Amino acid sequence: MASVLYDNIGELVTNDPTHGGASLLGLRRDAAVVVEDGVVAWVGAAGGASPADERVDLLGRCVLPAFVDGHTHLVFDGDRAQEFAARMAGEPYAAGGIRTTVAATRAASAEALLASATTRLDEARRQGTGLVEVKSGYGLDVETEVKMLQVARQLTDETTFLGAHVVPAEWQHDPDGYVGLVCGEMLDACAPLVRWIDVFVEDGAFGAEAARAILRAGQAAGLGLRVHANQLRPGPGVRLACELGAASADHCTHLTDADVQALADSGTVATLVPGADFSTRSPVYPDGRKLWDAGATVALATDCNPGTSYTTSMPFVIALAVRECHLTPSEAVWAATAGAARSLRRDDVGRVAVGDAAALTVVDAPTHLHLAYRPAVPLTRVLAATTP
Amino acid sequence: MASVLYDNIGELVTNDPTHGGASLLGLRRDAAVVVEDGVVAWVGAAGGASPADERVDLLGRCVLPAFVDGHTHLVFDGDRAQEFAARMAGEPYAAGGIRTTVAATRAASAEALLASATTRLDEARRQGTGLVEVKSGYGLDVETEVKMLQVARQLTDETTFLGAHVVPAEWQHDPDGYVGLVCGEMLDACAPLVRWIDVFVEDGAFGAEAARAILRAGQAAGLGLRVHANQLRPGPGVRLACELGAASADHCTHLTDADVQALADSGTVATLVPGADFSTRSPVYPDGRKLWDAGATVALATDCNPGTSYTTSMPFVIALAVRECHLTPSEAVWAATAGAARSLRRDDVGRVAVGDAAALTVVDAPTHLHLAYRPAVPLTRVLAATTP
Ligand SMILES: [Zn+2]
Ligand SMILES: [Zn+2]
Repeated sequence: MASVLYDNIGELVTNDPTHGGASLLGLRRDAAVVVEDGVVAWVGAAGGASPADERVDLLGRCVLPAFVDGHTHLVFDGDRAQEFAARMAGEPYAAGGIRTTVAATRAASAEALLASATTRLDEARRQGTGLVEVKSGYGLDVETEVKMLQVARQLTDETTFLGAHVVPAEWQHDPDGYVGLVCGEMLDACAPLVRWIDVFVEDGAFGAEAARAILRAGQAAGLGLRVHANQLRPGPGVRLACELGAASADHCTHLTDADVQALADSGTVATLVPGADFSTRSPVYPDGRKLWDAGATVALATDCNPGTSYTTSMPFVIALAVRECHLTPSEAVWAATAGAARSLRRDDVGRVAVGDAAALTVVDAPTHLHLAYRPAVPLTRVLAATTP
Repeated sequence: MASVLYDNIGELVTNDPTHGGASLLGLRRDAAVVVEDGVVAWVGAAGGASPADERVDLLGRCVLPAFVDGHTHLVFDGDRAQEFAARMAGEPYAAGGIRTTVAATRAASAEALLASATTRLDEARRQGTGLVEVKSGYGLDVETEVKMLQVARQLTDETTFLGAHVVPAEWQHDPDGYVGLVCGEMLDACAPLVRWIDVFVEDGAFGAEAARAILRAGQAAGLGLRVHANQLRPGPGVRLACELGAASADHCTHLTDADVQALADSGTVATLVPGADFSTRSPVYPDGRKLWDAGATVALATDCNPGTSYTTSMPFVIALAVRECHLTPSEAVWAATAGAARSLRRDDVGRVAVGDAAALTVVDAPTHLHLAYRPAVPLTRVLAATTP
């Protein structure tokens, strides 16, 4: 038994309401945590723990559950920096830019994809992220989707089949034929590699009918559902996600009142990815305030991808969610940990509770407020983490 | 003689137009730099340098002049995280919040101020900043202004007397009396410690007449001029700065066409601090595009301070300047290096040129575009730096 005592934690975010009375984050001041063999064994007052094999003095810093990033596209080849620069000079974002990355990813070896994705995952961990979801969707043929997902599984258990990212160029003349491929041979090949299926519902990607067929096929194959919904304009994505019982509707930038109500009335989490709204210079950001006040469950994610949000920084997403989506700093931290865990239907991450695998992030600051208050300053790192 | 060869630089930003033809940044692909005893001794092609005592292989990464942060308030005590959270919940920013920091800074020892400011400077350096300007302005009495500046001089040569930050509470009944103190005894005590004098021109701080008197007094004492101008609403700050030949007018968030023209027609640099507009949730950002196109010289700075912009991250400021101020990524990088050097009237920093003190920052990416393309990812660090 190897035990570590993390002592003199100035503020501990547990996300456990039984620890913190009425506080959303289950805050404990002047706390300590003991980890034994990678599992949280004890949570209590600073100075109050029994001796452990090792003692780490946090010197009053804030500790929180490691961030959960429930929406990433970490596996890809090629960058799109020039496209980004052109967009910042005034060219609008269109979903078709994805095809640039598809060409590069098809041409890349699995080894090269694993190497670059591992670099990005390490980058995320250095900023305090403990668990990531990773999607396919830059293959759009059976062979490359499988190649991507075999790589993704080496990074995380939370893998997602996104054959329905866009219709690839070779199927432009027959989009229905591509939907058939996704629901048939491609799904058959990818389902054993994933927990989730996802569809990009958007003009230029997939409409409601195609999305419904693909999600139903995934459901029949035993997969949970996620949806890229309402990113660029209002549309049917959010309501479809809620109707089909998806775990998460992601983006949610353009919502009608009916969409907000559907999310509030359902178990579908609204995963906001304001990094994408930032890097596409979206004219609006998701209205996190309205979603939260309506009773929807809100999560935050990076949407890390080379086209629209090439950031791995959950603290940056928190700062944007406060500045632009009008969440409070506490709500944003909850959404980046407990909310994101719910978006993956996980109750063993995103909190600090006895018996859970230890996944702790330290903030080089006295409170969680500093994550939004000190934008882009690299304050966070994973303190303790079990293997992915 | 200790020499270091930095080889295989994928993209070198020199800010020297003679190196790069028509390119703003004087870009060189596949370059190398030799530093001897802290001075740039040679700039040329990768693989083309004579052997040096040490060789560092940059593996194709981008190298640029270390960032110059020409507007900071790094010396202070106390944080204002709760005020930030309240503001994000809807309370407007008012200049009077400065007084919270004044009380804490007056109470702090010089040793404590030096320790916390050094931590912040180290944080800035870890993100690629080579030179900072540091202001007083949280003392507002002779003793504490001197205490702050004695600390600031241990961090940088670019120190600024900002006795005219706000009128302190004990002078509320007699603001003209406070202006007299600033121009008299306080200036006399502080002038030997600084290169610059600065005034916060704003409703709630100082009007045009008081600002003119203070700046003229500073000029008579041999100091260069800087102005906090047009942050919260249109006002006389920018035109006063241009009229008096200030080196820099900082903020520039609310400009009339006449203000833009005055900057374009003068040697006064427009220093944009969009981190402050971000953290105060300003309804608008400075129009960097308009300033640049009009022919003004544009710089970027963090304005690092505990009230309105508690970031030390120049890469974040670059990303905001692109997203929100509509500079191109190349213009923003120029503004954070060469432009900022001009705002401090320095021609020995903000570029990579033979004979200059070496101050190089490496980006863990192939081009400078990635600074805006990968927001808030900690990609930069100082590679070589002479002592402050
Ligand atoms: Zn996505
Ligand atoms: Zn300032």
